[in-house]
Amino acid sequence: MTQKQPAPRIRRSPEQVRAAVHQAVVDLLSEPDGEDLNIPAIAQRAGVNHTSVYRRWGTLDTLLADTVTTRLERDSPLNDTGSLRGDLTAWAEASVASLRTPEGRALVRAVVLSIPSSAQPPAERARQFQRRMRSIEQIRERATARGEDPPPLEQILDQLVAPFYIRTIFGIGLPDTGYPQLLVDRLLGSAGEPPSATASA
Amino acid sequence: MTQKQPAPRIRRSPEQVRAAVHQAVVDLLSEPDGEDLNIPAIAQRAGVNHTSVYRRWGTLDTLLADTVTTRLERDSPLNDTGSLRGDLTAWAEASVASLRTPEGRALVRAVVLSIPSSAQPPAERARQFQRRMRSIEQIRERATARGEDPPPLEQILDQLVAPFYIRTIFGIGLPDTGYPQLLVDRLLGSAGEPPSATASA
Repeated sequence: MTQKQPAPRIRRSPEQVRAAVHQAVVDLLSEPDGEDLNIPAIAQRAGVNHTSVYRRWGTLDTLLADTVTTRLERDSPLNDTGSLRGDLTAWAEASVASLRTPEGRALVRAVVLSIPSSAQPPAERARQFQRRMRSIEQIRERATARGEDPPPLEQILDQLVAPFYIRTIFGIGLPDTGYPQLLVDRLLGSAGEPPSATASA
Repeated sequence: MTQKQPAPRIRRSPEQVRAAVHQAVVDLLSEPDGEDLNIPAIAQRAGVNHTSVYRRWGTLDTLLADTVTTRLERDSPLNDTGSLRGDLTAWAEASVASLRTPEGRALVRAVVLSIPSSAQPPAERARQFQRRMRSIEQIRERATARGEDPPPLEQILDQLVAPFYIRTIFGIGLPDTGYPQLLVDRLLGSAGEPPSATASA
């Protein structure tokens, strides 16, 4: 293994190092050969010693998950619009706007690459999922506090989150206008409907 | 690069070689360290010279896409149930059954890993998407021939395909009973509804 040392030797705060490492992840993921993503390459790009990266994040999966969560929280501030429908639409619009950028698509790629392997314990997967769905959970809690009856988290995942991810994964364009509203209408229009009475095979 | 030659030297038909290579892809993807998937490793596992693999598939992306499409077609035969609702439910039930197996989850992983990079021309991405959606397109064509009015392909992607993929990607369990019917009900219940009249921001 060749251990290239990064050039810059400027003293940076832990937060500056963290931001530089996150930016390196996004930059490397945005490149066509992003498949070869690994901690030494990320550290080199960030101008950080790779041992610091290992010490702070431990594994590539953890670093990817941390990058994604941090960026998504930064890019999708949760304004209180006064209603569940308004909050979900605002969240969906921010997500669509993000997915129209190369960085946004890189973040989805990071999410996918940080998929826990089947060897990972279910509890750890559940924790990562909860972390990624934190914004949606906040919107749900706010709605409940208002006296609204939000759909379950998993239904929001199926009907609002999944379409964005899948279209980005397959490289299919998002419709130019009205897509966030369309998805929210589908979700809230069918909210509270009981599952089909038809028995499962 | 070390070029380990595969052990077996038995003469096999092109179809036997193809099946062995597909199986090697699925096996390697099912392993926890499936991230290091590459053509030499696949060829070695399959007992095939890697030059044959390069000659036949060209790139790892193409091989992954071919493996997925072939396996999905084998595992999800399209029986004509006599109605769009029946065909889609049967398709969804077969998909859920497949995703409950380690091999099925490995196939989703293969789909995700074969995601065209952003550098790939839109036409090539569109072609790969069409190929993956071939079963759904056949169900739609059959429905149209019956005089039914199936939802657009992209709506089926959003409401029926996306939830399966996203739950598998995030490692979230699929509900034990009624899930295929629930998704089909959501899809067909809202089929033909115009998008919301609310203007996009």
